[in-house]
Amino acid sequence: MSTRGWSGDASEILRVGEGFRLADVDPDSHPGYDGDKKSGTADLAAGIESLGELQERLYAESRAGTTTDSVLLVLQAMDSAGKGGIVRHVVGGVDPQGIALTAFKAPTDEELSHDFLWRVEQRLPEPGFIGVFDRSHYEDVLIGKVRELASADEIERRFGAINDFESRVAASGTRIVKVMLHISSEEQKERLMERLERPDKYWKYNPGDVDERLRWPDYMAAYQTVFDRTSTEVAPWHVVPANSKWYARLAVQELLLAALEDIDPQWPTADFDIEAEKKRLAAS
Amino acid sequence: MSTRGWSGDASEILRVGEGFRLADVDPDSHPGYDGDKKSGTADLAAGIESLGELQERLYAESRAGTTTDSVLLVLQAMDSAGKGGIVRHVVGGVDPQGIALTAFKAPTDEELSHDFLWRVEQRLPEPGFIGVFDRSHYEDVLIGKVRELASADEIERRFGAINDFESRVAASGTRIVKVMLHISSEEQKERLMERLERPDKYWKYNPGDVDERLRWPDYMAAYQTVFDRTSTEVAPWHVVPANSKWYARLAVQELLLAALEDIDPQWPTADFDIEAEKKRLAAS
Repeated sequence: MSTRGWSGDASEILRVGEGFRLADVDPDSHPGYDGDKKSGTADLAAGIESLGELQERLYAESRAGTTTDSVLLVLQAMDSAGKGGIVRHVVGGVDPQGIALTAFKAPTDEELSHDFLWRVEQRLPEPGFIGVFDRSHYEDVLIGKVRELASADEIERRFGAINDFESRVAASGTRIVKVMLHISSEEQKERLMERLERPDKYWKYNPGDVDERLRWPDYMAAYQTVFDRTSTEVAPWHVVPANSKWYARLAVQELLLAALEDIDPQWPTADFDIEAEKKRLAAS
Repeated sequence: MSTRGWSGDASEILRVGEGFRLADVDPDSHPGYDGDKKSGTADLAAGIESLGELQERLYAESRAGTTTDSVLLVLQAMDSAGKGGIVRHVVGGVDPQGIALTAFKAPTDEELSHDFLWRVEQRLPEPGFIGVFDRSHYEDVLIGKVRELASADEIERRFGAINDFESRVAASGTRIVKVMLHISSEEQKERLMERLERPDKYWKYNPGDVDERLRWPDYMAAYQTVFDRTSTEVAPWHVVPANSKWYARLAVQELLLAALEDIDPQWPTADFDIEAEKKRLAAS
């Protein structure tokens, strides 16, 4: 991973490990990457091609039946932290045929009638795909806790259920890449203010965003608990400083590249007689 | 539509109307577009931006509740005609958050236990989205007919069911854009041969492709019947000559642009007091 401008393995550098403290992460920092916005933008463009080819190889292998692997990117963040930009600029660089994107909204009545993981399970990526969760089951232990939508006992139960679930998903061949995009409260204020100043951004603004914003410390505490309880060996969390959009995009791309390089997908060999097929085709 | 290098309205020029004969369409031609590959590639790149903005406006309107409109692109073609390239290079230029792509495969046992439109209905785009069907319910009247997977009576019933279904979908606010990418048999032979010559393309080759190829005239006849029976006012077919990949991509992009321009989505106005929100936000 020392290529592409990184000083080390981004998946290690950004990983939530033992003793991690969210409060110690500077949202303006660029851990592991020595370049600036200009080189970062160039590296992002270069990475798009690699990511696209790796995904296509993975898809090809899955079609040939030689792998059951997939990747699942889980994106969590406070409002305006840049999830949409990640989807557009990182995920959007990959052939849509290899992407399974789900934006989780407030649960429907049908979804509420099931366990909170029911709707998540249905959206897991099939072999060969990069699945992307824009929000996820973590809402059920974040907003669920901050807004007291569930009891403390229920939140506890959910942490256990999440770890069991992710352990099973990982065992089935899915590389789980969990990312929290971390912006500062000041940065969020600026980004929300921009939405109030541009008529083409009004639709992204919701007065409720300010209500949530007033609970910022509660959310940070809830994220810390999420990290303490669910950053596991098979499904670690990564906290990506996101005040610089270019850095956040590059970092998430790097995490996806690392996951795919770990799978190391190969073009499948032909399971037919190439020369015989050339003859059949030529005669057709 | 006289901008962007087109001599007229592509959705009219390529439309399957009264008396249309597939046999009269030259797969090498570029109807309605006066430019060459170089200008076509430039126009495609320029159109990506327009398409992206129009889709975002549509999505914004749907979120604001001021529209229930959506677009549905239905792609049908013989193997190797370039459906994948359309998805990658035309659809792939739009933010993935606005796309709902479904690649229909051979139906599963569960799908077969329902009517053939059951699985299709579930994949219709929600308001604000561009839905894309890579293959569709038309397989059930194409391969269904050529391979005699269904009786002649059943195929007849399906034509009626398709027209009823599409009429209902259109009435609900979905612009249906049906496209057949039309290549020549010789062009297909070259493209399949390339898959046999490149190890990174072997996975795309299936010996069954040659078997289907031998039924070329039957497929062309089946397409002609599909056009005769299902090119309706609310859901017309368009035949896009596709021996030139650049032309086919540009033409499909143009059809999508025309559908979105017909909707003419606008940025929603704010449904909150902008100045009051600025003050709340500043104080937060």
